Amino acid sequence: MNSVITGTGSYIPTIIKTNADFNEERFFDSKNEPFETSNDVIIEKFKAITGIGERRYATDDKQSSDIALIAAQKAIEDANIDPEELDYIILAQNFGDIKKGTIQTDNLPSLASRVKNLLRIKNPNCVAYDIIFGCPGWVEGVIQADTFIKAGLAKKCLVIGSETLSRVLDMHDRDSMIYSDGAGACIIEKKESGKSGILSHVSQSHTYEEANYLFMGESNNSDSDPNIRYIKMHGRKIYECALNYVPQAMKTALDKSGIAIADVKKIFIHQANEKMDEAIIKRFFRLYKIPTPEHVMPMSIHKLGNSSVATVPTLLDLVVKGKLENHEVNKGDVIILASVGAGMNINAVVYKY
Amino acid sequence: MNSVITGTGSYIPTIIKTNADFNEERFFDSKNEPFETSNDVIIEKFKAITGIGERRYATDDKQSSDIALIAAQKAIEDANIDPEELDYIILAQNFGDIKKGTIQTDNLPSLASRVKNLLRIKNPNCVAYDIIFGCPGWVEGVIQADTFIKAGLAKKCLVIGSETLSRVLDMHDRDSMIYSDGAGACIIEKKESGKSGILSHVSQSHTYEEANYLFMGESNNSDSDPNIRYIKMHGRKIYECALNYVPQAMKTALDKSGIAIADVKKIFIHQANEKMDEAIIKRFFRLYKIPTPEHVMPMSIHKLGNSSVATVPTLLDLVVKGKLENHEVNKGDVIILASVGAGMNINAVVYKY
Repeated sequence: MNSVITGTGSYIPTIIKTNADFNEERFFDSKNEPFETSNDVIIEKFKAITGIGERRYATDDKQSSDIALIAAQKAIEDANIDPEELDYIILAQNFGDIKKGTIQTDNLPSLASRVKNLLRIKNPNCVAYDIIFGCPGWVEGVIQADTFIKAGLAKKCLVIGSETLSRVLDMHDRDSMIYSDGAGACIIEKKESGKSGILSHVSQSHTYEEANYLFMGESNNSDSDPNIRYIKMHGRKIYECALNYVPQAMKTALDKSGIAIADVKKIFIHQANEKMDEAIIKRFFRLYKIPTPEHVMPMSIHKLGNSSVATVPTLLDLVVKGKLENHEVNKGDVIILASVGAGMNINAVVYKY
Repeated sequence: MNSVITGTGSYIPTIIKTNADFNEERFFDSKNEPFETSNDVIIEKFKAITGIGERRYATDDKQSSDIALIAAQKAIEDANIDPEELDYIILAQNFGDIKKGTIQTDNLPSLASRVKNLLRIKNPNCVAYDIIFGCPGWVEGVIQADTFIKAGLAKKCLVIGSETLSRVLDMHDRDSMIYSDGAGACIIEKKESGKSGILSHVSQSHTYEEANYLFMGESNNSDSDPNIRYIKMHGRKIYECALNYVPQAMKTALDKSGIAIADVKKIFIHQANEKMDEAIIKRFFRLYKIPTPEHVMPMSIHKLGNSSVATVPTLLDLVVKGKLENHEVNKGDVIILASVGAGMNINAVVYKY
């Protein structure tokens, strides 16, 4: 018996925010001082490290649960299931619904409840809840769905990741250029026969030193209201944490699965920083003493930035549907889903198509 | 093999807010009109229905994760375990950390990550996440811990419920007199032998008509900032929903457990409204065609109000520790944990001590 992904879906918000669009912003450092370099140079350096050229923001009329709904509908359609048969709706998020122009998070009811309501599902035994686990929340939702299936509690689960980071970013912080909005989803079903499905997984929370590497803080512009807080990060520390722990977590998951490293076709890793992701993957393969294969790591970061929990499911959806150049997934392929983010949480799933 | 509660803990905030303290407030109805009756009458009627005489608010220096920590420490001490051995920290909440005097929810990082950090746990394989599931979130966390244990993913879990509703209530809405702050926790461990532990459980999300029975809305005082939203409820609809579905959910759980109704010693039900809880329990026993036994339902609502996810674990902790008159739990006793709240979510766990 296995937990099999039978459908995927994603929603890529329609507002394209290019790097050039940040040229007019006034950036300050974390000590509220303006930078000595011009925005041109800041943006060029940002692009060189992160790979991000543009990102997407949701239109003013849409909140996180609205875009979650669209991704969910596509995944349901792709899996060709009756939504009334869903046993769980697991929605990963970190900032809830935030109306454009306001600063309050609205989790009442949970976004999963909202999506279930909007899907017009009547079955009360379809349990809808949100999980907060930083950027790795969607991958963790997949792991929880697998657990419910293996424990006999569920046969069909909808797992969604949705976030509108554009509503919590500080326009005076150059780090904010990383963030994007998005939603991705999949259907996971119990299948009694066949060899495809979730083979193994690993989850970790590194909190002893790392809990506040991502945090809510005041604007870098000292003229801003100190009572309004924004998403902030200690980028260097996150980079080091990810490099130290993600490759080994992926190896632990792969070794548990019994799959040989040579059989790993694709690694879908959270898109936060291109250089960081390349370094993680290189170090992962180095643990097996082999060089990084070509085209093993699909990247969406150049056009989509870091959309938190939405990144991995969106990337998976793009590749599965043949929408990313040089990348495809075929029957029998082994892939790894991996993520790292606020918490600091890290996880990895080994999956056979 | 069973999932056994080996320790409990709770934190009851220190600020006592009595009904009389609301006498000076200016209450308006949902159409922003003042009431024709005096506050004396409003408060007396409120007390007669809900049973609430006073409630607790956290001091200004404490956020939800701070009080969660205290409850967690007590549960760990009670279970006499090494926190480094925890496999999961599951924290149920709905509004996150909110600094006194501000309106923003802070879930970055998750409150579970914060608590794990404050507990000084080093083990990275202790996975810390938050669940958002309305008031039934803590009971759902217990169900998830049981599932992780049964699926072989965990041996020891810490499940916390923590909320500071005092930070999201509208002082111009008489319904706000219900809400309270609090935190409760338990340790659940895998035990290979013995007959005690979680016997069965049921979870439901009623979202088709009910999703927005609890919601974030503007103040009842039309002079207030329309961009600031508060916890609001359609009390009558919640009452009917709870009466319609909770007794049957409890019966489904009990019937799954194979335990006879005569063997149920105590029912720990979410404390939102005394009259509603009495009606639910009466209807539950009526499903078995028997009258409600005396002292079957411990109540903390008179002094503690409705502290959301903290209510059931706090009540359980009070009774287990012999701190609630006429109530005790002894070896071999069968109890039911049950909850209903935003979502609208409902759940029930049948447990043998």
